[in-house]
Amino acid sequence: MTETISIRDRQRLQLAPLTVPNRLLLGPGPSNAHPTVLQAMSTAPLGHLDPVFLGIMDEIQSLLRYVWQTDNPMTIAISGTGSAAMEATIANSVESGDVVLVGVMGYFGHRLVDMAGRYGADVRTITKPWGQVFSLAELRTAMETHRPAILALVHAETSTGARQPLEGVGELCREFGCLLLVDTVTSLGGVPIFLDEWGVDLAYSCSQKGLGCSPGASPFTMSPRAMEKLQNRKTKVANWYLDAGLLGKYWGSDRVYHHTAPINLYYGLREALRLVAEEGLAACWQRHQKNVEYLWQRLEDVGLSLHVDREFRLPTLTTVCVPDGVDAKAIARTLLLEHNIEIGGGLGELAGKVWRVGLMGYNSRPENVDRLVDAFKQVLG
Amino acid sequence: MTETISIRDRQRLQLAPLTVPNRLLLGPGPSNAHPTVLQAMSTAPLGHLDPVFLGIMDEIQSLLRYVWQTDNPMTIAISGTGSAAMEATIANSVESGDVVLVGVMGYFGHRLVDMAGRYGADVRTITKPWGQVFSLAELRTAMETHRPAILALVHAETSTGARQPLEGVGELCREFGCLLLVDTVTSLGGVPIFLDEWGVDLAYSCSQKGLGCSPGASPFTMSPRAMEKLQNRKTKVANWYLDAGLLGKYWGSDRVYHHTAPINLYYGLREALRLVAEEGLAACWQRHQKNVEYLWQRLEDVGLSLHVDREFRLPTLTTVCVPDGVDAKAIARTLLLEHNIEIGGGLGELAGKVWRVGLMGYNSRPENVDRLVDAFKQVLG
Repeated sequence: MTETISIRDRQRLQLAPLTVPNRLLLGPGPSNAHPTVLQAMSTAPLGHLDPVFLGIMDEIQSLLRYVWQTDNPMTIAISGTGSAAMEATIANSVESGDVVLVGVMGYFGHRLVDMAGRYGADVRTITKPWGQVFSLAELRTAMETHRPAILALVHAETSTGARQPLEGVGELCREFGCLLLVDTVTSLGGVPIFLDEWGVDLAYSCSQKGLGCSPGASPFTMSPRAMEKLQNRKTKVANWYLDAGLLGKYWGSDRVYHHTAPINLYYGLREALRLVAEEGLAACWQRHQKNVEYLWQRLEDVGLSLHVDREFRLPTLTTVCVPDGVDAKAIARTLLLEHNIEIGGGLGELAGKVWRVGLMGYNSRPENVDRLVDAFKQVLG
Repeated sequence: MTETISIRDRQRLQLAPLTVPNRLLLGPGPSNAHPTVLQAMSTAPLGHLDPVFLGIMDEIQSLLRYVWQTDNPMTIAISGTGSAAMEATIANSVESGDVVLVGVMGYFGHRLVDMAGRYGADVRTITKPWGQVFSLAELRTAMETHRPAILALVHAETSTGARQPLEGVGELCREFGCLLLVDTVTSLGGVPIFLDEWGVDLAYSCSQKGLGCSPGASPFTMSPRAMEKLQNRKTKVANWYLDAGLLGKYWGSDRVYHHTAPINLYYGLREALRLVAEEGLAACWQRHQKNVEYLWQRLEDVGLSLHVDREFRLPTLTTVCVPDGVDAKAIARTLLLEHNIEIGGGLGELAGKVWRVGLMGYNSRPENVDRLVDAFKQVLG
């Protein structure tokens, strides 16, 4: 080894091993992972083509189909966070010039608009004030106007706490020969969801919310109709890392190397999904619903009001109105630094107007509701 | 909660908690992470905007600059595996029609060609037989012919075990007003590298090789020259997740939310980088070189020969010629299943002709050399 250049030590920090405060994460995510998930993540690594690891991938695929209630063969984890899985649905379905109609009722609708534009879509939007949702009649009218190739909706708007009903939307999309793309980032694992029954063609989610895992490996699925559009593309998918054709050759029976899977994250995801299957989806959804209703009651008992109409409130994420004259950021900061509880602030239209409180996955427990509301009472004075 | 659709349990696997065999990963990666890295990864999560977590991100940035020997402010971890960081360099530097010259001397050169094409580049290639490298004179001739906007080279070809010398290439690129993009996936942490001295403008790597971390968070850097090209783009970066402008607002002082960082992976990366800084880069490189020379000696002692000329061999990855009449795949399978040692097979031009043996990060230790060569002797008979 010849080494004629001298090594500079300017950026060579000398650090102690990591120590972090023990936070209760009740914001819009990440939530605290289940302790056995964190334990699974520290398991010794396998190679990404090891037969034992390939078996783990198969288990992840089955369990993802279970939690999404789909039989889509193309149901995998994307090796990135939820935003990467979001981009995977866009990248694989959109060809330049495709009309993509996005229902924008919060921050993540805007993100879909931005992404679809980058893939050359002719993006059209319909909008709702943040906290409201679209009716089926409104969606029908928009479909008649725009005749999109893809309708993109956000099932659970993390920025507003609103749940977009999806019953009937799949049939509408079939009537118009259009694919249905749905964001389930804040619903998967915590909100009833039936991808196949609802006729959803493309969906994505994350690991660190309803599934109670650590972030970084993100559920992604495509229906046979969406696969058909992919196979008929005239151009390559404009994203190598997220190309479902290449990913399918690794996750499917071909087992062709694409990228090195984030091994230890997949361990965690497998454990998180295993726990949901053990609890059972119905029980898991009911737990989220029961605990959020307890949260709503306790918040209202201390005089706080909620931003979204009860019918459309998410069981996973609640937007709490900031009382007049209260500094939302200062309260959240005090909760974090003095009580070790993280909650989220408002984004976009709701900046400064709401706090966002998540009760997701492992964190959806009554003792967390009590701890939060007690701290809230103390901090609000 | 109304729930009129019944839940199907067809995909509801009932699994036991994860157990995996304890493999020694001596393939092209992943390598075994350092035990304290795995421990750090199971630390309680923080929110991605928590001030403590932002401090950890700052530490990662500094230490990445140290291991790459660069002062680039835009030095971050991409929230995906090495291939995502590879795509980030392409996505942020290429605009439609840009001439990109790729030096192809193995599998990863081909991948760069594929990726650059997806971003609309006018891709030109120069090639070498797998296992050889380009001379500075050959690069100059190609620059004169193609006049590229970007020259892309692979510093350490994971598919061949060859090290592309980079001395003088940065000056050549400046002479031709061209950016230099370099794959350091199998070099970072294990092979001497001086990004700033060598005039490298864009580089990417992975976490699970020389750095001894788990895969999933991947080093990425851009020089001020590359940032200038980014800022002068006429079109948005054709990839939302990997857009360095948006990523810079999260990693920089603005702290604007982009995506939810893979919190626990960043913990692991911070620990892996901390260990390299503690050992010191010179010592770390010397350790890799010393142990690989011991490997070469021991392999030659048992009658095996090496594919790459000694001068250009990587200290991190060695290609071992498969003796005539030996079934390379069968040997690797026996090593894996009977000895719990993973090594890699050949790709592309080298399929069936070589094994790939990695000694990277935590795994670069003499006892691993002994264990491998002893097993090899036994299996080859």
